[in-house]
Amino acid sequence: MATKAKIGVLGASGYTGSELVRLLLRHPRAEIALLTADRRAGQEMRSVFPQFSPFDLPTLVSIDNVDWQGAGLDLIFCALPHATTQKVIKQVFAAKPDAKVVDLSADFRLHDVAAYAKWYGHEHHAPELQKEAVYGLVEIHRRDIRTARLIANPGCYTSGAQLPLTPLLKAKAIETGEIVIDAKSGMTGAGRSAKENMLFSEVSEGFHAYGVGHHRHMAELDQEFSLAAGKEVIVTFTPHLVPMNRGILSTIYVRGRRGKTPEDLHAILAKFYEKAAFVHVLPFGETPQTRHVRGSNMTFIGVAKDRVPGRAIVISALDNLVKGASGQAIQNMNLVLGYPETMGLEQVALFP
Amino acid sequence: MATKAKIGVLGASGYTGSELVRLLLRHPRAEIALLTADRRAGQEMRSVFPQFSPFDLPTLVSIDNVDWQGAGLDLIFCALPHATTQKVIKQVFAAKPDAKVVDLSADFRLHDVAAYAKWYGHEHHAPELQKEAVYGLVEIHRRDIRTARLIANPGCYTSGAQLPLTPLLKAKAIETGEIVIDAKSGMTGAGRSAKENMLFSEVSEGFHAYGVGHHRHMAELDQEFSLAAGKEVIVTFTPHLVPMNRGILSTIYVRGRRGKTPEDLHAILAKFYEKAAFVHVLPFGETPQTRHVRGSNMTFIGVAKDRVPGRAIVISALDNLVKGASGQAIQNMNLVLGYPETMGLEQVALFP
Amino acid sequence: MATKAKIGVLGASGYTGSELVRLLLRHPRAEIALLTADRRAGQEMRSVFPQFSPFDLPTLVSIDNVDWQGAGLDLIFCALPHATTQKVIKQVFAAKPDAKVVDLSADFRLHDVAAYAKWYGHEHHAPELQKEAVYGLVEIHRRDIRTARLIANPGCYTSGAQLPLTPLLKAKAIETGEIVIDAKSGMTGAGRSAKENMLFSEVSEGFHAYGVGHHRHMAELDQEFSLAAGKEVIVTFTPHLVPMNRGILSTIYVRGRRGKTPEDLHAILAKFYEKAAFVHVLPFGETPQTRHVRGSNMTFIGVAKDRVPGRAIVISALDNLVKGASGQAIQNMNLVLGYPETMGLEQVALFP
Amino acid sequence: MATKAKIGVLGASGYTGSELVRLLLRHPRAEIALLTADRRAGQEMRSVFPQFSPFDLPTLVSIDNVDWQGAGLDLIFCALPHATTQKVIKQVFAAKPDAKVVDLSADFRLHDVAAYAKWYGHEHHAPELQKEAVYGLVEIHRRDIRTARLIANPGCYTSGAQLPLTPLLKAKAIETGEIVIDAKSGMTGAGRSAKENMLFSEVSEGFHAYGVGHHRHMAELDQEFSLAAGKEVIVTFTPHLVPMNRGILSTIYVRGRRGKTPEDLHAILAKFYEKAAFVHVLPFGETPQTRHVRGSNMTFIGVAKDRVPGRAIVISALDNLVKGASGQAIQNMNLVLGYPETMGLEQVALFP
Repeated sequence: MATKAKIGVLGASGYTGSELVRLLLRHPRAEIALLTADRRAGQEMRSVFPQFSPFDLPTLVSIDNVDWQGAGLDLIFCALPHATTQKVIKQVFAAKPDAKVVDLSADFRLHDVAAYAKWYGHEHHAPELQKEAVYGLVEIHRRDIRTARLIANPGCYTSGAQLPLTPLLKAKAIETGEIVIDAKSGMTGAGRSAKENMLFSEVSEGFHAYGVGHHRHMAELDQEFSLAAGKEVIVTFTPHLVPMNRGILSTIYVRGRRGKTPEDLHAILAKFYEKAAFVHVLPFGETPQTRHVRGSNMTFIGVAKDRVPGRAIVISALDNLVKGASGQAIQNMNLVLGYPETMGLEQVALFP
Repeated sequence: MATKAKIGVLGASGYTGSELVRLLLRHPRAEIALLTADRRAGQEMRSVFPQFSPFDLPTLVSIDNVDWQGAGLDLIFCALPHATTQKVIKQVFAAKPDAKVVDLSADFRLHDVAAYAKWYGHEHHAPELQKEAVYGLVEIHRRDIRTARLIANPGCYTSGAQLPLTPLLKAKAIETGEIVIDAKSGMTGAGRSAKENMLFSEVSEGFHAYGVGHHRHMAELDQEFSLAAGKEVIVTFTPHLVPMNRGILSTIYVRGRRGKTPEDLHAILAKFYEKAAFVHVLPFGETPQTRHVRGSNMTFIGVAKDRVPGRAIVISALDNLVKGASGQAIQNMNLVLGYPETMGLEQVALFP
Repeated sequence: MATKAKIGVLGASGYTGSELVRLLLRHPRAEIALLTADRRAGQEMRSVFPQFSPFDLPTLVSIDNVDWQGAGLDLIFCALPHATTQKVIKQVFAAKPDAKVVDLSADFRLHDVAAYAKWYGHEHHAPELQKEAVYGLVEIHRRDIRTARLIANPGCYTSGAQLPLTPLLKAKAIETGEIVIDAKSGMTGAGRSAKENMLFSEVSEGFHAYGVGHHRHMAELDQEFSLAAGKEVIVTFTPHLVPMNRGILSTIYVRGRRGKTPEDLHAILAKFYEKAAFVHVLPFGETPQTRHVRGSNMTFIGVAKDRVPGRAIVISALDNLVKGASGQAIQNMNLVLGYPETMGLEQVALFP
Repeated sequence: MATKAKIGVLGASGYTGSELVRLLLRHPRAEIALLTADRRAGQEMRSVFPQFSPFDLPTLVSIDNVDWQGAGLDLIFCALPHATTQKVIKQVFAAKPDAKVVDLSADFRLHDVAAYAKWYGHEHHAPELQKEAVYGLVEIHRRDIRTARLIANPGCYTSGAQLPLTPLLKAKAIETGEIVIDAKSGMTGAGRSAKENMLFSEVSEGFHAYGVGHHRHMAELDQEFSLAAGKEVIVTFTPHLVPMNRGILSTIYVRGRRGKTPEDLHAILAKFYEKAAFVHVLPFGETPQTRHVRGSNMTFIGVAKDRVPGRAIVISALDNLVKGASGQAIQNMNLVLGYPETMGLEQVALFP
């Protein structure tokens, strides 16, 4: 029997934390060795997430009480809030320089120190690590991830936009000045903090946009799209909230460049993802639904022809907690630990 | 006490029919004198819509059994399916040439006989009436409506797009070649017919686009936008389904023309709707939510600046069954019968 | 034109507060003269509830700044949290002994000082007022309400249980020792405070009971049921949460006494509510749905035969924010101010 | 590598069919060899359930075209509608007497020919098989199942009632004359057929009971409860529909017999299920939520004390498509094929 890697999950009382636990419990080469949750320290996981009641899991502890060297962790998932994350990861590497960390926050996604300061309004607390971190969208940066010590797991919205757009930008197949991304997310994307505007009664039976014209995820898109296109790309991006738990659908409006038809764009994507385990390009003209990827690590992509000549509509669907967060993080873990990329991530979507 | 007009509702077993009944029951100058529902003929309205159980309403009858002259109806709402409508309205006017009809179907919205044949795949059954019909978006065509005999009530998607865009097109304030309308609708927009893809289990906890690149509502948009702009306008339009009952949110991406800023666009809309009872333009930068107009005849419009220079994001929200259908229809009725435009339509939105 | 009463709403930033505003805005004899919301003082109502954006409403003020004598209010609705309420109402009557108050909290529902202390764990802050207060379930206590100065508006769960059970208990038609009330409520019943367990993601796509075996509403049931039966009655009551905004369905299991059949029980209820404007007894064997009373002040009651001989299943449905709270409160206001009982409460249910 | 059993799924276009496919795709010892769907014969599974788009699955065929001998199936799941099932299974056994069949319909759950005829209004088409069939609630009938040829998978409602009640009845710990089961189910329990009353707009934002006083599942409860108690037991049972996809919560009201306290009842259940992999008894006083078992084969059971002396409230939660149908069916398959009972059923619940 193969040995199991000892895994720590920092921030286990949030939704990305619980999703990591859900997936790790069935990963054949992972053992959950540490769970932290500062405000719930001393409690059992079952009191925070009753679905784990039948399982044996470590008692929740406070991060301050962790001995990073002594814990003997093979890999650490960090699912902590913005800003806290920087400080904690700095401490982890100070105590254990050979640690492996997959960070699910936004803290290490921007490589540029100045861009970080501009979008977040303060200097980064760990600029050296910021530069070192590898951006963890496996389908795009697979090679760099394998040898990284610190991986910045991408955002859910940005994953939904990058998976269809990056191959098109790399192929210089679309105009970069007319990209419109109209994104719609389920509520778990907003996390588990108790805020009035996230109450059931505020959210159900309605639909709205938010952060219109300005949203922090744009910085991540700018970085990755400009890298892919080899020149500065600035897109229009509007996030919306859907009264559902899981899923992001991104409706993306593009114009083909130099005569590229919608069929050409489809062919580029189909070829790029031919061997990808977790990105599935639908037949031309079919478009995806979030419900058909729910609970799975899959992204479905569809391409359709617009009636306006030269324009195409590209739509992606993923589960924001899986491919948009914790599934993606385990995919990164598999690369870092030398496991098969799909290990523990084969669940079929739960529909209906 | 003022006399009450005798009103008929054809197709009372569908959602726009029941919404007409809901509103007419509280209209001070309307009396529901006739309700038809072919498959439910002979039944009481309470067996089709139990919410009406406490009210006295006429028994449902078959259209074939109506004596159009003898019924003495002052106005007829027609909430029948596509195609059936043309035949029925032709018969109504044949029997009673001075009838007043507000039709909620798509059958009389296109003035152009050729455009109708192209989008619907067959010749119109009442081309004379098609030409005569007045397009019933009150805020745009108020004057013509007052004297019309046959009013084509606009579609719900198209109302959500026209109310914000028509004033901008009339003012020649936006580029006509780059308009993208990303629309999201609640499920009642799809009607009450029993189809697998409209089942609760198929629709809840998910989100998707449909009719991507081709949707019949586009013909209506083409007609009205080209009329407003004084030249041919073809827009990109994608409808989506939201797991909620009521509401349409339209996120509209435009580029200002000849230096027009997002603030300028906002000012044009604010001025245009200054005295409109049912269109409310939010302060610049605020954007609407469907839940805040639910059950009311209101449309909320917001304008925000995009970070891409020169571009604006315009968002409208309305209740597809009220301002997008039955409320709009009663607004038309009020004009035709000489009542105050807001009569019976003053309900405040139901939130939460 | 009839004069309008000047109305104050204390606690306008919660759901029962906004529901009062929704209904009062269309009440022909009411003028909203005062809105308080301590944490939102100085803000406009539209920033707390955007659906009111098109309406002129008083700016929100702090209760501490209200001059109860000078304000000239004809009636005050108190929609404040438990315990705060007692202190505020005491102050109101101290400053203005002839004030009229309809209180929507639980603070004045129990007449017995000892029962209050037992269920709430502390002495009442205004025991004299506690004794004076009239329990405001109009259909049961109509006469006392007309002349009251302080009315304790009933709870939403208890209204749903009392309307069907009180007439049966008064008629001594059911066994008092075997009553089981299985109640299911929408989320607005839990109010608008930001709590983790009320987040959309915690509540949607699931169902659960809470407060099993012990719930404060039981005290109110004990008082009213014992009063109706003329002897002590203790019922089994279990509340559940439904992933919907509005509505309470109470499934009530009873056994007929001295040979009373389910049909007999139905006849008793039908007779009792024969002239009631807001309680509608369905034909025998039909049972109600919450969606058919949504947004209206109606309660629907159904009675069916159980297959266990002698037992009946009685089901009631009401909108917890209307008949279960703010509509009931306005019904009380109408009695106190001498208006017709149904004034401003005639809205038809919003379905779908 | 262990060999895989060849599995057929009859009726793969419904929800229990797709759920079988979801689970079988990840079962290490199962190979999906046959999928039937009469109205969709000739189509790929991905066109009926797009979530399977990335997977290789057999093309859907018509049952009439299956060669039962030649197909070489090791086990057949039958997920067909009532009545059709009897005829098909009769044919299967006629062609291949040593077939193994797990039937998910209600057709073979009643052992008594007369009871069947009474509840279903006609004679059974395969009375010999009806007598032979073993009732497949594994936790109760494990021994008989291992050697059975035809297993009648229990209903979802009845599983939710039997798992908590059967051990209490066997222990003679509760009064049999006062059992009230108030059950609430998600919409997938009603299947995938296109009916008006199952449309999203009819079901969302509301709650109701149905089949009040009479429901076919009662026959199954009568049979199993009477068997467990050793005497005739007739319970009160009311099903309700919750606007959610998956899950059944059963709130069960019982009275302890001969001094048995709620704590005693809890102890009996905890002991009975001590080693059960798929039934988890919560600590005394805690009650379950359906969301915490969603997508898993788990049943959670809670027991709480009622305030009425001697009475307890027992609540169970399961996923109607998994433990209430397809997961239970695979648990039966595992027994029949000699696999470990939990194989392929270890998924952790998907929450949120």
